[in-house]
Order: sequence, then structure tokens, then C-alpha cells
Amino acid sequence: MNEFALIDWIRGQAGPATSGVSLGIGDDAAVLALAPGESLVVTTDTLNSGVHFGDYDPADSVGHKALAVNLSDLAAMGAAPRWFLLSLSLPKDSDAWVKAFVGGLLGLARTMNVALVGGDTTAGKLSVTVTALGATRQGRFLSRDGARPGDWVVVSGELGDAALALQELSRGRSPDPSGVEKLRRPIPRVELGATLVGNATACIDLSDGLLADLGHIAGSSGCGAVVEADRLPGSESLRSCPVEVRRALQLTGGDDYELCFTWPEARRDELAGIESDLGLKLSVVGRMVEGRGIRCLDSDGQPLAFEKQGYSHRL
Amino acid sequence: MNEFALIDWIRGQAGPATSGVSLGIGDDAAVLALAPGESLVVTTDTLNSGVHFGDYDPADSVGHKALAVNLSDLAAMGAAPRWFLLSLSLPKDSDAWVKAFVGGLLGLARTMNVALVGGDTTAGKLSVTVTALGATRQGRFLSRDGARPGDWVVVSGELGDAALALQELSRGRSPDPSGVEKLRRPIPRVELGATLVGNATACIDLSDGLLADLGHIAGSSGCGAVVEADRLPGSESLRSCPVEVRRALQLTGGDDYELCFTWPEARRDELAGIESDLGLKLSVVGRMVEGRGIRCLDSDGQPLAFEKQGYSHRL
Repeated sequence: MNEFALIDWIRGQAGPATSGVSLGIGDDAAVLALAPGESLVVTTDTLNSGVHFGDYDPADSVGHKALAVNLSDLAAMGAAPRWFLLSLSLPKDSDAWVKAFVGGLLGLARTMNVALVGGDTTAGKLSVTVTALGATRQGRFLSRDGARPGDWVVVSGELGDAALALQELSRGRSPDPSGVEKLRRPIPRVELGATLVGNATACIDLSDGLLADLGHIAGSSGCGAVVEADRLPGSESLRSCPVEVRRALQLTGGDDYELCFTWPEARRDELAGIESDLGLKLSVVGRMVEGRGIRCLDSDGQPLAFEKQGYSHRL
Repeated sequence: MNEFALIDWIRGQAGPATSGVSLGIGDDAAVLALAPGESLVVTTDTLNSGVHFGDYDPADSVGHKALAVNLSDLAAMGAAPRWFLLSLSLPKDSDAWVKAFVGGLLGLARTMNVALVGGDTTAGKLSVTVTALGATRQGRFLSRDGARPGDWVVVSGELGDAALALQELSRGRSPDPSGVEKLRRPIPRVELGATLVGNATACIDLSDGLLADLGHIAGSSGCGAVVEADRLPGSESLRSCPVEVRRALQLTGGDDYELCFTWPEARRDELAGIESDLGLKLSVVGRMVEGRGIRCLDSDGQPLAFEKQGYSHRL
């Protein structure tokens, strides 16, 4: 398939333009309208073959994940996702792969009600870049820099299952299918993010591992944090791992795509309300403190050390 | 350099956030404000090492071009460029390359008054994806679908020099330096695009070659076009080539990043006014017609055929 045939096929799959789209796929650029008083929230993430995914990952799951990791960034800002662009570099003879990929991508797009409005397709090593665009009421968004000493550190869902699944797969073992599902088809916490705006003091999505990502909140906010390793929420599979393995996966494994946010202790009742309204587990796992850096404690209050803080690309 | 050190370094180079930027580099997403009554215009383009550029291209020129080709898409919509995102996949030990690359990228960004507001850096084969964001007054933009039979086909600047330079470089020869400059550092026609809004009936930027790109206007507008090959504007170097070579480069070579637009003949005086106001050559090279497809004629009115219509990635 040549470039233009592929674009036409994708356009057919994506369906007609939706709300706010003055001009969608098929021109030099897309033209999009925000409502009065809305700001634009925009983010981009690349997934490279051999780095972020491999031949063993089903193409439709790569499509799902390429969009999900971007929507997770919008969720961490408390923004409502609206539209996205897809830039695709494809080696020769990728037809079957790209059809499954687009299926997974547009499946999540329909679920989350976001519209594909443009992009680029070129020859190259298999690589996917999604740019996601969302909206927020002016000045009403979450950022990394508002945490204050004394705030609780809260995470959604359970941590470490995706990292455990990746570790097992890389060792040729068969991991728990629900862990593989979390690794390959993370669900961006869009509803939670929207609920946290105006309530949480800072927020980030967990892509590189809790220590690294909470480190960004602490660094941007000019304070430190203490995490209690044994309060980290985990699945049964994870709790059956040796404790050191479990802690390393949950604190430094990455790929969770849950939200980590800071919350004033005085508003503890509201937190319980959100948890019950959304039917999503929210766990207090530590506290922001004066000073710098992230310290990790075991259940006896003894400090724990880790070889690495989380995933960082060596360039 | 690791990923986060690189992001900090780029942030330092990019300087402080500018107009409309509520939150720039360094959070999960950027937050941007449009003025009341403005629409967003957004486009993305990828340049891959070994496909769009090579080791022989200076890194700073790759940075310039990665942004320029995106701003050229915004120019073709008549939009005012405001912001951009950069997604960079880098092999190991790219420090020197990336510093020169960012220099070229931010050099053009300063000239065009656009701000880098976010992006992504990952390990991978060298690849650059830029997403450019601009603004237009609501409903005031150019598109590909408004050309009508009888409209003139107009191009800006001169065509074919970039394709000639690329051909010479690929054959190990030393091309005319001004052609190499056009290939490596195209100047997006932003001012022209803005001037054409409300006047031109359709517009596209010339990236894949005139026949292919005008073909998109014709296809979207439901008509055909006739191009007079010997009216195509060309440099002296180009006019010294054999006529068949010149025509092929100008019609199918690509990489011009000039604008091609359609214009009602009745408004010929305004066209001359724009040419003189902008100090930019505008050449009438053909006419839109009833029917389908693009026909090309020599100065005797005889039809010309070309092996390929323009650049299309085989995937």
C-alpha cells in the first residue's frame, strides 16, 4: 500500500469528523475549535519498535497503548481529551500490522470519545508518535508544582503488575494474563484526573515508576517525599513475589499509567468520596516533607535503597 | 546524557514561555490559550534518518527543516504559527548531533516567533517528529477543496532547485550552494499564506512535487488542472539543465516548500499587488479545468508524460 492509499484507508476507518472539528484528516493541517473560556492541553509521546514494544506485542495492543499513554498525560493534567494526530513510520510490507494497529488505536479512541484529525505516514523503522489534544476550563488544570510538605501522596489502582508482566515475558515465562492486559492495554485515568482539578495540589501519571515520577512532583514543588513501600497497592500475583522483587517492581518498574497525586490531609473525607464515586481504589502511600528527594521506608520505618529510581532513556 | 538531563538542557535553550503559554516544557502536557474567536490549526510531520535526511546533512539543517516543513503546512492553511512540540528518538552518543540540531531548530523558531512548549525524548533510531500549532480567526483558513474550473494555478518562488541539489548530492557532485540552502533550510511562506486567506480558492504547500500536490487540490475540489511546464519559474542553474531534466525536477521532484494556490482570474490585479507587497515572485503556471487529473503541456501545447507524479512513500 502506498502512503496515500493508507491515509485514505485510515480516514475511512476513523469515520466522520466530530464535535469541534472544522477540518479533519486530508488537508495540510486540521482546524479545531475550543469553546469560549477553554484552554488547549497538548502532549506527545513516541513508541519505538525494539524499545517500547516488540514483535511479541500484538499490533492492536500497540495501537491501544500509543493512544493510551498520551491520554494518560492529559488525564494527569485534568484535561478532557478531544482529538489526536498519528505520525507513523512504517517499514515495507506492514499492511497487516498497520490494519491491526489502527484497529486497536481507534477502538480506544471510540471508547474515550476522541477523534483522529490528522497525522503523517512515512517510510522508516517502525515507530509511532501520537499527539493528543484536550481542553480544560481556563486556569483549571493540574500540574506537578503545587505539592506542599504535609500533603498525602496518593496513587490510583494497583502498581507493579505491568512491570511484573514485562519481566516475566522477557524471561520467556507466561505471566498472569491480567498483568499482561495492564501492560499492553492501560486505561488512562481521565475521569479521575478531571475530578482532581481544584482538589489535588499536584499530579503526574506513573509511566517511569513511582520513585522517578514522584521525584518530578517533589522537584517541581521544591520539597521532598517519604513513601512507605509496604502500603503500595498490589495485585495477588504481585504479593506472591519475594518482597524485594515486589518493592522494586512497584517503585521503579514503570508502565503503570495510574495517577499519583498529592492531597491535603485536612480533606481526607473528600478523597473517600471520590474513591467511592469512581469505584477506583485510591491509596495513601506516603507524605510530602520538607527538604529534597524521595525516601522509601519499610514497615518498620527503616530506609530502603534501590539501584535505579525508574526508567530513563540513555541517549 | 540521559533523557531528563537532555530535556532540562533543551528547556534552557528554548528560553522562557511566551504569549499564550500557561504551562510550557516540563509537565505532563502543555497548556495553551487562544484568543477569543480563534481556532486552532495543528499539523505533524516526521523526518527519519536514512529516509528524509542522512549523515551528510548538517544536524542544524535537520533541526531547521523539521520545523520548517511543519510551519509550511500551517502556511498552506493561512494560519499564524504559535507553538510546537518536538518528539526525538535518539541513538546512543548523540550529544553533539542533538546540540547542533536543537540550535537549528530554535534558530528558525526565534525567526518565526514560535515557542517550543513540550515533547518527548526516547531511545531509538534517529527520528524527529514536530507537531506545529497555530491560530486562525474562526472560519478564516485555506483548504484544498475550493478550486473551481477557470481558476489560475499559481506558485510562489522558484521550483526544482531543492530536487536538483538532492540529485546532485546523491550523485556525489557539488551542487549550486543556493540550491543546497533551499533543500536544507526552506523558508515557510507564512506571510503569503496569511495574505491568501479569503482570496485564494484553494492552497497546498509543495512538498511532494507540483503534479502530486496540485493533484490533491484537484481531487479535493472535484476538478482537473492543466499545467504549462515551460511557465514554471526556475533558477539559472535549473534553466541550464536539459529541458526534460528540468521539467521532471520541477513537476515531480518535491521538497520545494513553496505554496501552490488557485486564484480567480477576475482578481488578477490583487495578485500583482500581493507579489509586490511581499517582494515574492508569484507565477501563474496553469489553470483548473472541468474533469479529473492533471495534464501537463509543453510550450507548443503538446501533452507531456512523467514516470512518477511525485514523491510517495512505499509502505
